[in-house]
Amino acid sequence: MRTIRVAMAQINPVVGDLKGNKEKILDFVGRAKKLNVDILTFPELAITGYPPEDLLLKPHFVRDNQEILSEIVKEVNKIAVIIGFVDSDENGDLYNAAALVHNRELRGIYRKILLPNYGVFDEKRYFKSGPHHLIFVLNGTTFGINICEDIWFADGPAKAQVKKGRAEIILNISSSPYHAGKGIKREEMLKERAVQNKAIICYNNLVGGQDELIFDGQGLIFDNKGNVVARGEAFKEDLIVADLNPEEVFTERLTDSDFYQEAEIDDLSIKKVVLSEIKSSGPKPLLPVKEVRRMGRTEEIYNALILGVRDYIGKNGFKKTVIGLSGGIDSALVAVIAVDALGRENVVCVSMPSVYSSTETQYDAKVLADNLGVEFITIPINDIYKGYIETLKIQFKGLKENIAEENIQARIRGNILMALSNKYGWLVLSTGNKSEMSVGYATLYGDMAGGLAVIKDVPKTYVYELANYRNATQGSYLIPESILKREPSAELKPDQKDTDTLPPYSVLDPILESYIEEDKSFDDILRMGYEKEIIEKVISMVDRSEYKRRQSPPGIKITPKAFGKDRRIPITNRYRDY
Amino acid sequence: MRTIRVAMAQINPVVGDLKGNKEKILDFVGRAKKLNVDILTFPELAITGYPPEDLLLKPHFVRDNQEILSEIVKEVNKIAVIIGFVDSDENGDLYNAAALVHNRELRGIYRKILLPNYGVFDEKRYFKSGPHHLIFVLNGTTFGINICEDIWFADGPAKAQVKKGRAEIILNISSSPYHAGKGIKREEMLKERAVQNKAIICYNNLVGGQDELIFDGQGLIFDNKGNVVARGEAFKEDLIVADLNPEEVFTERLTDSDFYQEAEIDDLSIKKVVLSEIKSSGPKPLLPVKEVRRMGRTEEIYNALILGVRDYIGKNGFKKTVIGLSGGIDSALVAVIAVDALGRENVVCVSMPSVYSSTETQYDAKVLADNLGVEFITIPINDIYKGYIETLKIQFKGLKENIAEENIQARIRGNILMALSNKYGWLVLSTGNKSEMSVGYATLYGDMAGGLAVIKDVPKTYVYELANYRNATQGSYLIPESILKREPSAELKPDQKDTDTLPPYSVLDPILESYIEEDKSFDDILRMGYEKEIIEKVISMVDRSEYKRRQSPPGIKITPKAFGKDRRIPITNRYRDY
Repeated sequence: MRTIRVAMAQINPVVGDLKGNKEKILDFVGRAKKLNVDILTFPELAITGYPPEDLLLKPHFVRDNQEILSEIVKEVNKIAVIIGFVDSDENGDLYNAAALVHNRELRGIYRKILLPNYGVFDEKRYFKSGPHHLIFVLNGTTFGINICEDIWFADGPAKAQVKKGRAEIILNISSSPYHAGKGIKREEMLKERAVQNKAIICYNNLVGGQDELIFDGQGLIFDNKGNVVARGEAFKEDLIVADLNPEEVFTERLTDSDFYQEAEIDDLSIKKVVLSEIKSSGPKPLLPVKEVRRMGRTEEIYNALILGVRDYIGKNGFKKTVIGLSGGIDSALVAVIAVDALGRENVVCVSMPSVYSSTETQYDAKVLADNLGVEFITIPINDIYKGYIETLKIQFKGLKENIAEENIQARIRGNILMALSNKYGWLVLSTGNKSEMSVGYATLYGDMAGGLAVIKDVPKTYVYELANYRNATQGSYLIPESILKREPSAELKPDQKDTDTLPPYSVLDPILESYIEEDKSFDDILRMGYEKEIIEKVISMVDRSEYKRRQSPPGIKITPKAFGKDRRIPITNRYRDY
Repeated sequence: MRTIRVAMAQINPVVGDLKGNKEKILDFVGRAKKLNVDILTFPELAITGYPPEDLLLKPHFVRDNQEILSEIVKEVNKIAVIIGFVDSDENGDLYNAAALVHNRELRGIYRKILLPNYGVFDEKRYFKSGPHHLIFVLNGTTFGINICEDIWFADGPAKAQVKKGRAEIILNISSSPYHAGKGIKREEMLKERAVQNKAIICYNNLVGGQDELIFDGQGLIFDNKGNVVARGEAFKEDLIVADLNPEEVFTERLTDSDFYQEAEIDDLSIKKVVLSEIKSSGPKPLLPVKEVRRMGRTEEIYNALILGVRDYIGKNGFKKTVIGLSGGIDSALVAVIAVDALGRENVVCVSMPSVYSSTETQYDAKVLADNLGVEFITIPINDIYKGYIETLKIQFKGLKENIAEENIQARIRGNILMALSNKYGWLVLSTGNKSEMSVGYATLYGDMAGGLAVIKDVPKTYVYELANYRNATQGSYLIPESILKREPSAELKPDQKDTDTLPPYSVLDPILESYIEEDKSFDDILRMGYEKEIIEKVISMVDRSEYKRRQSPPGIKITPKAFGKDRRIPITNRYRDY
């Protein structure tokens, strides 16, 4: 029986931190060697972090990343390592590549063949497609290497590597951005790819937050029958190790006469590298595989948001954050997430009541802050507000109160939070949810002000689910029940309710999902059974608030289509299909 | 002698306004028919406007654009017309296409072959590459059709259409975004293409502003020797008409034995369409070609900004704008541009002095407003500012004054301008220049607040050039001389000067151009002769202010690389090459 020990370093690099990423990579190489690992993979573009975006247009950035790879190569001995980096050719064309490193030598380079250029991806902006497949042999086993998108297509590189290259084990290195539900899709796809090719699949996925994107890790190893052999942690770094027996696989594959038919595969050539055998320093008892539980949907989203906050704050050199606490559900959830992500000593909550703030919401804000054990500051805005109204009395004379007066209040609060940020170096976390951001029910430079919009991609109906989930894990009303039960209000004028302006969230959210995430037409949504007038109103609010979203802080993507680079709608846009 | 009358409708469509664009197209068809034009072209994606961005992901948007094309086809008779639209195939794949319409029939479709996916372009996000060339014959003359990027490559579609398709006249339809200096490059390229292929080139370019992009028009017709036959207006709609004689061309081409060698051309097939002859209704005297002068560089930039303001305001349904006038050069230039773009009745200037505002700057602001004849409002911010300081006294107690106090003032001004916007429906024009935006020398939600950042892509050194240019065309100090001569200051603390924080603009701007537009490294810039400490400081300020730019309003692109979708740098980015 041939047994090969494969490990996947599920790491959290920082974009652009080439030296820091190198140290992390070498640290994981050391850990894997201590476990007698034969072959170790790192995620896609592990050296640069993913996505490096237009840093790739700087020739010195690419050179520096190659220099870092050379430095790593010199340190890698008695283990085969696959590392994602940026490769270039003599024409200056770039490739999203995987280096095969062994015995202090760079033995081969695989260049990604399928380049995603949709959704949040712009890979054709930077990279050319790879010209050939890469197969290598180690200790009698044949491996195929491919990168992220390559594995998602049944007739893609994995098939060619198995059928033409006779790979027994496919090593895929990925940086696959998270959204709720993607893990299940990914798992189904990988299972299908394993079964279809009768090959072992080792899928290593990046972990960490990078601006709006979360990479969830959750690496997976499937045997050739499509069973999960090992599973990596979600939203955490991990070293996933498994002892694999390709002989069993190979035997089964030989019995399948159809399997080697070479139809419907690309016409790219196969490069084959044979590595010298790795002798284990001693007897190698089989390692038990660590059991990792799959998270439920709400738990997963909650943990994605925590990672998003922690990495945005930490990777950008901040420590402390400040949040305007209104006593409503959105800011309450953001405060709880921030405390879970950063610790209560790094979260300051500020109540900024006006004449329209009810005693109930102010009380609830205080109770929540006490529950969380965070610093709580009260800064009333009435005097400043009066100052604005007095200063603007000539301009406002004879005109009815309108959105102007409401927005002045929200912008005073934005100004105060930013003043605290400027004075103390705290990062402002803004608290608007996706439903509000969609219809523009938020004040630009007011409640939208901040460095990170934590729940910008979380629809209001999810906000409640997440709050209830967190209270359930606490086993108590960490977020006070009255916050959960109170009818949503912006409290910017007397007796204001969200439903004065918006349909109920149970109606609004499905319409928004259809229109924004699924690109459905007015007619499609009408057929779902909603009222014509409501759909028209919602769609037109979404269309008209594109300019606001364009100036909003980055937010953590948790749905299939977030705002930001995921949805590129022109501001100047007269298209109406209603 | 065969003479064919070609016209190019250099139109300004609105993105998404399919019906409005149809009416404009039919209006130009009518005008061309009155001039006995044989063949008329419209720009790339004339039906949808360019770029439609993610509207293309809505299947109903694509269907509606095709329906509009069908409606246009029914109206086009006794003239051949080429119109840019979005084509789709049975798999749902999309193509950036040109429809060949004649005698109320859609006679052919050309699908763009070369798709730009760099800079501001994301065409591979939406479109597949076309599978074949399209050639058509009308009144004995052979035409090749191609689209924008197709013409930019010597070995691209134009060559194939001439060499394999024997096209005598190339009709290129473009939506080529403007930046200073591009017109000259484009003209050289087209001349080269004409000479190389010994073909007549009719290059029709879109005109208009679309969010951050300006399309400058400036359509061109070159004869087969590379001489300009006709030139379209810059930054204006135009109908460019020329009588062309392909026989002369053809004669010359036949004498060139090398010309029909088929080497180095793509392997795509040629589709050929023969149109029935168009009989002129009467004798057709040759039309004199309208003389259009090429603008100088500063004049061109100035006019680009005017078009950008006019179209952003108009296409988004606004009429009036409001500008905070500080008495400095930036807001002065923006006010003048706004008046030139919109008329003085649509520009309101607001002076918002604080204790740090000098009497000189306040006086200059008033003089400028008087020179322009615009409404001028003074709203002092002292009382509001005192309110903030009083309200924050506990939080600020014992701490030194810092950027917090400065930003509070800028944000009060932002709040006031937005309040006027909300009360009166005016759009706020923000006034920061590219040098400031680059190094983050601007207050987020303060002076950065607004719907359009008019000179966001204009470096400070250009700001002076544009101001001087405009004063020169006026023949007087429209912008007061004291504004031009005063040392720049934000006036947010006593005796503040920009040079307290920044190197002189004559040093700053070339460093910024090298770093931002040319992606030069620290070492490259050091070799240009600037001081190490200054370069380090500038680069680090640029890197650290990415988060501010991400929340800035759209600005009008006039340089080869603007902020926005032209430069996609991660916020979370630890790359440093110094």
